[in-house]
Amino acid sequence: MSLDGFVAGPNQSIDNPLGIGGMRLHEWVFPLRVWRAQHGEAGGEDNESSRVVEEANQNLGATIMGRNMFGGQPGPWRTDAPWNGWWGNNPPYHHPVFVLTHHARAPLACEGGTTFHFVTDGIQSALDQARRAAGTRDVALAGGAQAAREYLKAGVVDEMLISLAPILLGSGERLFDGVGDDMHGLTLKRTVAARDVTHLLFERSTR
Amino acid sequence: MSLDGFVAGPNQSIDNPLGIGGMRLHEWVFPLRVWRAQHGEAGGEDNESSRVVEEANQNLGATIMGRNMFGGQPGPWRTDAPWNGWWGNNPPYHHPVFVLTHHARAPLACEGGTTFHFVTDGIQSALDQARRAAGTRDVALAGGAQAAREYLKAGVVDEMLISLAPILLGSGERLFDGVGDDMHGLTLKRTVAARDVTHLLFERSTR
Repeated sequence: MSLDGFVAGPNQSIDNPLGIGGMRLHEWVFPLRVWRAQHGEAGGEDNESSRVVEEANQNLGATIMGRNMFGGQPGPWRTDAPWNGWWGNNPPYHHPVFVLTHHARAPLACEGGTTFHFVTDGIQSALDQARRAAGTRDVALAGGAQAAREYLKAGVVDEMLISLAPILLGSGERLFDGVGDDMHGLTLKRTVAARDVTHLLFERSTR
Repeated sequence: MSLDGFVAGPNQSIDNPLGIGGMRLHEWVFPLRVWRAQHGEAGGEDNESSRVVEEANQNLGATIMGRNMFGGQPGPWRTDAPWNGWWGNNPPYHHPVFVLTHHARAPLACEGGTTFHFVTDGIQSALDQARRAAGTRDVALAGGAQAAREYLKAGVVDEMLISLAPILLGSGERLFDGVGDDMHGLTLKRTVAARDVTHLLFERSTR
């Protein structure tokens, strides 16, 4: 998220899924060895962010994402040229991914263990399915902003990691727009300062 | 600033100068010994925030603030019941304070060395006057949001301290509204994690 609260820049499109300037939010992650390994690349560096990324990705058994994060145009799926997402032949999930959509579609199995399942009956159903698929492992909510807001408002988020980039985007999609004035049970648990990003880890409070 | 970018809540008024919920942004500071001492109170605690507050307040020779932070209704000053700000008889500045306003007014001298000067010819004039008053000491830009934005856009801010409260306000006044998509020369220099606040210190980059 940018310092001014945006998780994507303006004018998101198929050619520019993060919107204008949105990629700047992620620049801290690309040099990391752990990120490069997840994407099949060698080398990279280790810094304060490495462990945060490792912890966020460990023990995951399923992922949930919104339709806009999976990608493609809004509305019904095209049958002439079916959109397979931004994620390529070997997506970096390697487990079942549940995509929130209003439009039914058969599951899409990819290399490396990732299968996209398209869920049309709401966020609770997607969460139930993801939990069953994950078994004893955790369910990750990958995004985008709308999916994050919906689960946050439903009060079912147990942990939230905000990687705050010290930049301004000025416009775009705000993560917390319309969420209200409380944290829906989450409190700040830990802050990790890296060179070009500040990680804020929230957990469900028991107090 | 709240996690969603607000530095004041909605419905700011003379009775509620920080707006609804705005006081929640400052709760981390009230228990601190250094804050209590500045306000003439004994006791208090020391934690990670103490040094941040001490450093932010050391070596100051003058302060600039907007009319709304000084307080009172907008428009011409009332002559029947002149507004003297929120700051009481002994404001916590103890040096000259330059208030940006469209309405001329004679200087207001208070106990403890604080004198409010009302500047009607713009932010550069206020900065020039504050620098002269400060001599070899630093000039603080106290706020509010509009004054901060104007100086930021003018490119004359050398240091910026964002004390990020891990809460949402949902609405109110956004610090960075209309500032654009760059940091106007500032880069993140240091992050200080305290229990209930994360301090982000920006400095003018020389790279």
